[in-house]
Amino acid sequence: MRPDGEEVFIAEHLAPLTEGFPGAYGLQDDCAELAPLPGHALIFKTDPIIEGVHFFGDDAPEDVAWKALAVNVSDLAAKGARPVAYLMALTLSGRPDASWVQRFARGLQAAQDAFGCVLIGGDTDVRPGINDAPAPLSIAITAIGEARAGAMVERRGAEAGDAIFVSGALGGAALGLQLRLDAGFTEAWPLEPADREAARQRYLRPRPKLGLRVALQAYANAAMDISDGLIKDLDRMCRLTGVGAMLEWDAIPLAAGLRLACGVDQAGVIQLATAGDDYEILAAVPAKHAAAFARAASQGGTDVTRIGTIGGEAGVRLLDANRSEIAVGATGYDHFDGR
Amino acid sequence: MRPDGEEVFIAEHLAPLTEGFPGAYGLQDDCAELAPLPGHALIFKTDPIIEGVHFFGDDAPEDVAWKALAVNVSDLAAKGARPVAYLMALTLSGRPDASWVQRFARGLQAAQDAFGCVLIGGDTDVRPGINDAPAPLSIAITAIGEARAGAMVERRGAEAGDAIFVSGALGGAALGLQLRLDAGFTEAWPLEPADREAARQRYLRPRPKLGLRVALQAYANAAMDISDGLIKDLDRMCRLTGVGAMLEWDAIPLAAGLRLACGVDQAGVIQLATAGDDYEILAAVPAKHAAAFARAASQGGTDVTRIGTIGGEAGVRLLDANRSEIAVGATGYDHFDGR
Repeated sequence: MRPDGEEVFIAEHLAPLTEGFPGAYGLQDDCAELAPLPGHALIFKTDPIIEGVHFFGDDAPEDVAWKALAVNVSDLAAKGARPVAYLMALTLSGRPDASWVQRFARGLQAAQDAFGCVLIGGDTDVRPGINDAPAPLSIAITAIGEARAGAMVERRGAEAGDAIFVSGALGGAALGLQLRLDAGFTEAWPLEPADREAARQRYLRPRPKLGLRVALQAYANAAMDISDGLIKDLDRMCRLTGVGAMLEWDAIPLAAGLRLACGVDQAGVIQLATAGDDYEILAAVPAKHAAAFARAASQGGTDVTRIGTIGGEAGVRLLDANRSEIAVGATGYDHFDGR
Repeated sequence: MRPDGEEVFIAEHLAPLTEGFPGAYGLQDDCAELAPLPGHALIFKTDPIIEGVHFFGDDAPEDVAWKALAVNVSDLAAKGARPVAYLMALTLSGRPDASWVQRFARGLQAAQDAFGCVLIGGDTDVRPGINDAPAPLSIAITAIGEARAGAMVERRGAEAGDAIFVSGALGGAALGLQLRLDAGFTEAWPLEPADREAARQRYLRPRPKLGLRVALQAYANAAMDISDGLIKDLDRMCRLTGVGAMLEWDAIPLAAGLRLACGVDQAGVIQLATAGDDYEILAAVPAKHAAAFARAASQGGTDVTRIGTIGGEAGVRLLDANRSEIAVGATGYDHFDGR
């Protein structure tokens, strides 16, 4: 009996991604085996990406693969964990085209090399189409990280008085998505061509902030990644300890060009900056450690910005330079409403 | 800001499934945390089930949930691992109906109680329909087991002379599926109503053979579960060590009624018995330990049957009572061909 299509596909394209990790058994076993270092625990996250929801059917396969892994690794980064391994359940719409698969595997290789983890297991299925339309591609990755036992930085823990920090700059991914949906979007905004291109890349290739690991473990009371939007995710963090939060709009670091664009359409820029998909990290840090946290982050190669303070009544308020509240409508991504 | 639909859904229906496991953080964190017992490793498997491929859209939600977890736990059982935890990525076709969700969660609870594991994390997405048809439901579970470091029973390791064992009885799940597709199927076969009902249950609720753990760890050279069919999966096991295998058709334990049905349609019965979905365990055991293996299995509450011998030229041969080869066409399930 000859190996079937799935076995050949796995051996040729996916097995090389397990190189150097014996517990993956070259994807030839039913299961994979992994033990943390002594005194460490494993940290888990699963977050699938689906064609038509999280990416476009004609995105480059390399970019789709990168995003599939990056969105999971971003959560590990927010917990102060070091990525170690991942499993991948791939649901295809038909027998995959060899060149698509090669490019997809190349994207995975690039991402796992960048993040420091390897493929250890998975599954491949072909799903039949519906009403003559091919089924959408779906990639469900389970990412596994490692942290000293008890050292995982929780989402719960923000206390009144904590400084609120965010890594990187916000709004780029949402701008990239909008430009993808409507190239003429922001025509009236004073954006440079390079800003638009950076935003497109930002949407396609999120970069998990793994350099924050030491800083988060040393100083953060709470942390999470901003995948569903700054205000929405901060509110989730706050609700766990029953606190509120105040954000200073002028302090929030924005993707290149967006601060200038505020002069034309501040509400539009706020919408982008709070829309999600940036995969930056939000952290609540005791005020007395704020400077040390920023220093440690910078030493890890990641800039962070203090953007507000935990406290006040429940809810997240966005304040202008006069400390007046800026009205913000519904922001962020709702997985059930799809917006 | 109020919790959104997804958060309420998770808190109400899924969070109770994490009870007693602090590392799940009640599904309120981005990640889960888990460490194996000292001297142990964690064992991983991910195998999604998809509506229209692995189950029917009108299957009872309790059964769908059970199957989603069982197919993954079955692989842990084959490796001699003890189930500990699982993550679940649920892709829904729309905002879920409350009663469907309650029943689905009830099925998960029953399955995890039966298998001894808990939910520790996951994700929920809603996928848009295609061409006015709702997207199929998909449930991607990553199951995590535990085994003493280095004690995982590998798929590789079958040696010439090993006794081939299978747990339970074969063909029931495939019979249940055929009856589902065509209630008149096997009308000419001498099956009792109870046999047909048992087969239907068998298809809907696979029961991972966790009772084999001690026997497998103590005696098996190699093991795997039979999800894609006896001949196909045995051939995969054999190819890893470059051996062949001989199976004795008369020795193979068949689901109730099927042995009698051989008098009417032996080829049809062989097709069912090698079609897969039975989630029984296949093991290669050194001949000198065959009796001890069977005894240990029985002590663990699981009957096993010796059905053949590793050896001979490459490939799997099915032999009749005269040791003549029975011609068998393509058997088992190909994930790419969908048959």
